[in-house]
Amino acid sequence: MSAEVVILMGSDSDLPVMSESAKILEKFGIEYEISIISAHRTPDRFVSFVSALEEREVKVLIAGAGGAAHLPGMAAALTAIPVVGVPIKTAALGGVDSLYSIVQMPSGIPVATVAINGAANAAILAAKMIALGDPDLKAKLKEYSKELGDKVNAKAARLESIGWEAYLGERSV
Amino acid sequence: MSAEVVILMGSDSDLPVMSESAKILEKFGIEYEISIISAHRTPDRFVSFVSALEEREVKVLIAGAGGAAHLPGMAAALTAIPVVGVPIKTAALGGVDSLYSIVQMPSGIPVATVAINGAANAAILAAKMIALGDPDLKAKLKEYSKELGDKVNAKAARLESIGWEAYLGERSV
Amino acid sequence: MSAEVVILMGSDSDLPVMSESAKILEKFGIEYEISIISAHRTPDRFVSFVSALEEREVKVLIAGAGGAAHLPGMAAALTAIPVVGVPIKTAALGGVDSLYSIVQMPSGIPVATVAINGAANAAILAAKMIALGDPDLKAKLKEYSKELGDKVNAKAARLESIGWEAYLGERSV
Amino acid sequence: MSAEVVILMGSDSDLPVMSESAKILEKFGIEYEISIISAHRTPDRFVSFVSALEEREVKVLIAGAGGAAHLPGMAAALTAIPVVGVPIKTAALGGVDSLYSIVQMPSGIPVATVAINGAANAAILAAKMIALGDPDLKAKLKEYSKELGDKVNAKAARLESIGWEAYLGERSV
Amino acid sequence: MSAEVVILMGSDSDLPVMSESAKILEKFGIEYEISIISAHRTPDRFVSFVSALEEREVKVLIAGAGGAAHLPGMAAALTAIPVVGVPIKTAALGGVDSLYSIVQMPSGIPVATVAINGAANAAILAAKMIALGDPDLKAKLKEYSKELGDKVNAKAARLESIGWEAYLGERSV
Amino acid sequence: MSAEVVILMGSDSDLPVMSESAKILEKFGIEYEISIISAHRTPDRFVSFVSALEEREVKVLIAGAGGAAHLPGMAAALTAIPVVGVPIKTAALGGVDSLYSIVQMPSGIPVATVAINGAANAAILAAKMIALGDPDLKAKLKEYSKELGDKVNAKAARLESIGWEAYLGERSV
Amino acid sequence: MSAEVVILMGSDSDLPVMSESAKILEKFGIEYEISIISAHRTPDRFVSFVSALEEREVKVLIAGAGGAAHLPGMAAALTAIPVVGVPIKTAALGGVDSLYSIVQMPSGIPVATVAINGAANAAILAAKMIALGDPDLKAKLKEYSKELGDKVNAKAARLESIGWEAYLGERSV
Amino acid sequence: MSAEVVILMGSDSDLPVMSESAKILEKFGIEYEISIISAHRTPDRFVSFVSALEEREVKVLIAGAGGAAHLPGMAAALTAIPVVGVPIKTAALGGVDSLYSIVQMPSGIPVATVAINGAANAAILAAKMIALGDPDLKAKLKEYSKELGDKVNAKAARLESIGWEAYLGERSV
Repeated sequence: MSAEVVILMGSDSDLPVMSESAKILEKFGIEYEISIISAHRTPDRFVSFVSALEEREVKVLIAGAGGAAHLPGMAAALTAIPVVGVPIKTAALGGVDSLYSIVQMPSGIPVATVAINGAANAAILAAKMIALGDPDLKAKLKEYSKELGDKVNAKAARLESIGWEAYLGERSV
Repeated sequence: MSAEVVILMGSDSDLPVMSESAKILEKFGIEYEISIISAHRTPDRFVSFVSALEEREVKVLIAGAGGAAHLPGMAAALTAIPVVGVPIKTAALGGVDSLYSIVQMPSGIPVATVAINGAANAAILAAKMIALGDPDLKAKLKEYSKELGDKVNAKAARLESIGWEAYLGERSV
Repeated sequence: MSAEVVILMGSDSDLPVMSESAKILEKFGIEYEISIISAHRTPDRFVSFVSALEEREVKVLIAGAGGAAHLPGMAAALTAIPVVGVPIKTAALGGVDSLYSIVQMPSGIPVATVAINGAANAAILAAKMIALGDPDLKAKLKEYSKELGDKVNAKAARLESIGWEAYLGERSV
Repeated sequence: MSAEVVILMGSDSDLPVMSESAKILEKFGIEYEISIISAHRTPDRFVSFVSALEEREVKVLIAGAGGAAHLPGMAAALTAIPVVGVPIKTAALGGVDSLYSIVQMPSGIPVATVAINGAANAAILAAKMIALGDPDLKAKLKEYSKELGDKVNAKAARLESIGWEAYLGERSV
Repeated sequence: MSAEVVILMGSDSDLPVMSESAKILEKFGIEYEISIISAHRTPDRFVSFVSALEEREVKVLIAGAGGAAHLPGMAAALTAIPVVGVPIKTAALGGVDSLYSIVQMPSGIPVATVAINGAANAAILAAKMIALGDPDLKAKLKEYSKELGDKVNAKAARLESIGWEAYLGERSV
Repeated sequence: MSAEVVILMGSDSDLPVMSESAKILEKFGIEYEISIISAHRTPDRFVSFVSALEEREVKVLIAGAGGAAHLPGMAAALTAIPVVGVPIKTAALGGVDSLYSIVQMPSGIPVATVAINGAANAAILAAKMIALGDPDLKAKLKEYSKELGDKVNAKAARLESIGWEAYLGERSV
Repeated sequence: MSAEVVILMGSDSDLPVMSESAKILEKFGIEYEISIISAHRTPDRFVSFVSALEEREVKVLIAGAGGAAHLPGMAAALTAIPVVGVPIKTAALGGVDSLYSIVQMPSGIPVATVAINGAANAAILAAKMIALGDPDLKAKLKEYSKELGDKVNAKAARLESIGWEAYLGERSV
Repeated sequence: MSAEVVILMGSDSDLPVMSESAKILEKFGIEYEISIISAHRTPDRFVSFVSALEEREVKVLIAGAGGAAHLPGMAAALTAIPVVGVPIKTAALGGVDSLYSIVQMPSGIPVATVAINGAANAAILAAKMIALGDPDLKAKLKEYSKELGDKVNAKAARLESIGWEAYLGERSV
């Protein structure tokens, strides 16, 4: 089966963050590709690669970039499929540069932007889009939400049971 | 036919911005509902309304809010359908408060955030999601992109033809 | 005796900060509960828990959250008791996202916001509220203020006595 | 009956904003005083006035200030009663200077900070504090919350009834 | 003679600002083209147009854009000639979004960024680059600098001669 | 008598703000000069003018500038007399650019920075410096402080006497 | 001889920064006192201490504070002598909160603000003020400036002599 | 052969960043000088050095500075050759102070600003300017761009070949 989601990033220094997208997609059993492509350093390959996504029947593109982060927005200009943008945290400005460069798109070419370093959420968002036509995936998403809640509840129960001092002690071990 | 997209806002002061979403959905022939609901002022109705969206087979929720903008994120916590968030410009902080309140969601509950006051793009994003299962809509989206490009090209041709001074004169009339 | 103050946080990663609230309440002999509850991940439990606070005769809710921090504001929408909000410092934006998400509440639903990571002050504020009807607690608060001043004065006396170079030496030991 | 709440501001240019506090207190039937006092320009009167609040059995102080906004924090240093701070919007920085000057208080001296220009919420917060010992006031607060919700619902009903274009037309008349 | 400088902008709403570049180039007798092209709305024409600049012997590209401003940086990725970027002021964020999107380019693909709305300076910078190989243009640039200084000196003389009150009176007429 | 204070600004567009410095100096009977000089456009005159201040026995330099505001800091590098810097509000960034450019000076070359558009305070600060050796001026400064306090007290008395609604009515006439 | 300069800070955690002021004053042979006093935690001592400075013939007050930094501005309200404010860097906001709280003072009560953590410059500024009436100190200030320049020139000579690679090697030893 | 590019910085603490400019110029075989000169600490040498650049036939000046970064802008005021400015990252504000101080230049005196710590890009920009009259250098620049793209492609191939988990493992070794 071919990829339903493609994950792109501009530099391999973004991989520790962007691999969180991959983990989520694997968890949901969604086929994906992950690669490095730079709108700035490999513009020709970038244009041809993104322009071909629709024909390849890829459903959603996840693009992470930092600084003057043009990858998600330029991709959104080149393909009709939805693009999810992940602003990568930066050393000097904390990622507010990445965030503004991704989210402040002009009318007509939206990028679905998630939090700074929010690669896991980018994948969940992609899954929610695909789930519009896939009831099994939607069920998995709901199960996943439930698991997240269960984890919180388990932590709450543990904290209430042993008290905050003991809980802090366990966490720091 | 029932609504495929629901547009919510926290206050009717957001309607001049959020009606841009409605215009785009009408242009694409997508059925929608638009209403005012406040996560803060009508929390009970908010919880029950959003919790029912999936059963009503609504596909995408567009939520606009300003300041400590909790509407999109709380909605995303209550429904499995994708939520698109529109940060509304604010008088004191220009909307950076709205943007941070919407985009910086914790892992597990994404909101697809668009630009400050980017309600038109929110609707285009919703359309792109629905178009994953609707080739006719996808064709309309591509036609729309082409129109946007044609308008730019027409303006470019006009500018190149009459010069920037005359063009500025025409614009200010 | 049942809890006069409830301390909630969205994630156990906030506990090192929020436990400062607990320490202050213990110091003043105020009964409290501390737990983890997520407006986003456990919305149903969150709504029912917060809605029941008033009936349980809890007097003040302290809520800490980071990023798109909706916990304090949503709680304020669901209960008539005063809510004190603690913006948690975040890795990317230093907590300015948390601060804006908590303090910029719309008219009608205030959150008493303290400094970023200001959990100790949240508890003191809660104590000041309760002290409006409790002269003994008010006396304790005044004693506490006096202690804080005494500590500053003792440090000043030490610094003036041994000089800044020796004082810096003592501090770094 | 003497004042339960005192509203202070550093300059009469803050009165258009701070009078929103007065309106809310009147609505709830809470006795209040409103005056102008400057921590910077009238420091002696400021110190003696604030130091006397507790003896006068004032319950809550609301203090609004802009720029290097020291009034709320210095008042909190001088009285044991709770202080609610209102950051006033400023011409150059939008009020982020006022907000930081009020909210970022050191440990031991909290100011219950509300939104920029959030004077109405400051009064609601003061009312919530007083209502801890006043069931009638608490009932009024709940009635007020219900009214806020009813207004939103009425607007929603109107919008759903006449459509967004007509609604926008009505608003702009 | 063909164009030595090309001025591009993403939208005709940027023309009032970007025409300042044209005025400066005319003053220096530098041949230029000015047009509207959108990296987002007309990506194909954008790529082919910018890729052809070098062969056409254009020397410098000036590109103005606002918000998620990708035009200058994407152009820099597509051509070997120097690109000067002009961040356009935006309604919500004052242009800090445009500035970050243009200046924070990754290593290898610089954009020579000027001030927000600094289109005149963009043209002067382009002229300085061309003047490296054109002594006549360099002489004009020096003459222009001298004129700027002379204007300041004339204003200073006027102010010193008539006093600040009369000077303010003249300015406001 | 020659000037004790020199007021410089980079552009006559700063004069409406900087004339507030002149008004204060006149009030205190301090001799001053006011002129326009640009560190950027008239660098030679700037260097020679500032370098001569000390020999002319000028005591304090007040320098106002906006944007990349180099006038105060470069003046501080060229003269041993104290320099007071006034950051001018800017259209795009509100003056935070001016503020950072003036206040963030490296070790060794301080600029005494006042608030954005704080030209009146710059003159008061200059007067305080001169008053270190001038008891008459110190007396005037104290009288001025008293007047400021008296004005606040008069406004307070008026507000307490007629109530906030009438007071607001008077102000808006 | 009694102190010409007093250095105050709100907390001993500011001492590593504020001791830089002390070092500079010692270098110039200026008598000084250094102490810890909190406008918030020891308000009474603060008011009486600062109010007595003028009578004690202290010439300049240097005050360092972080966060909602009220110490410098409140001191300026209580004494006629010039106050130099040092914004201390903060963990969450980098010190922009301290800077705004110190520099954005209202008209009438200036604080001579220096850079974030700029305690050395605060002392140099104090020295420049005192030097207005002390030619020997002025000569020392000029000698100090010359030394700063000589150090830069020596580094430049070393760098030009051995090349940047060797120079970097020496620095990292 | 004499220097075509001069690299200046205000302090040797900037050398680790600014040496990236030197490396790039060496790679392209461009003659350069690198030195330390401070607009603030060595103003006379600064003025005479920069004023002489044109006569020495230096083609481009690269200037790096942090905080209230006046070096690039003041240099641009003193020479007709193009100036490239590198904002250096700062401890307190991340370099946004440096960026604003360099990029927000007034009309007439542009500085070609690159990213915070973007010294490599400064050198590439200088090379692009010189290449306007040097076809061999232009060829080297294109080759360099190609190399950058090749490196990205090689990384992409590696990632696609071994998968993201193995790739992350290799990177962390």
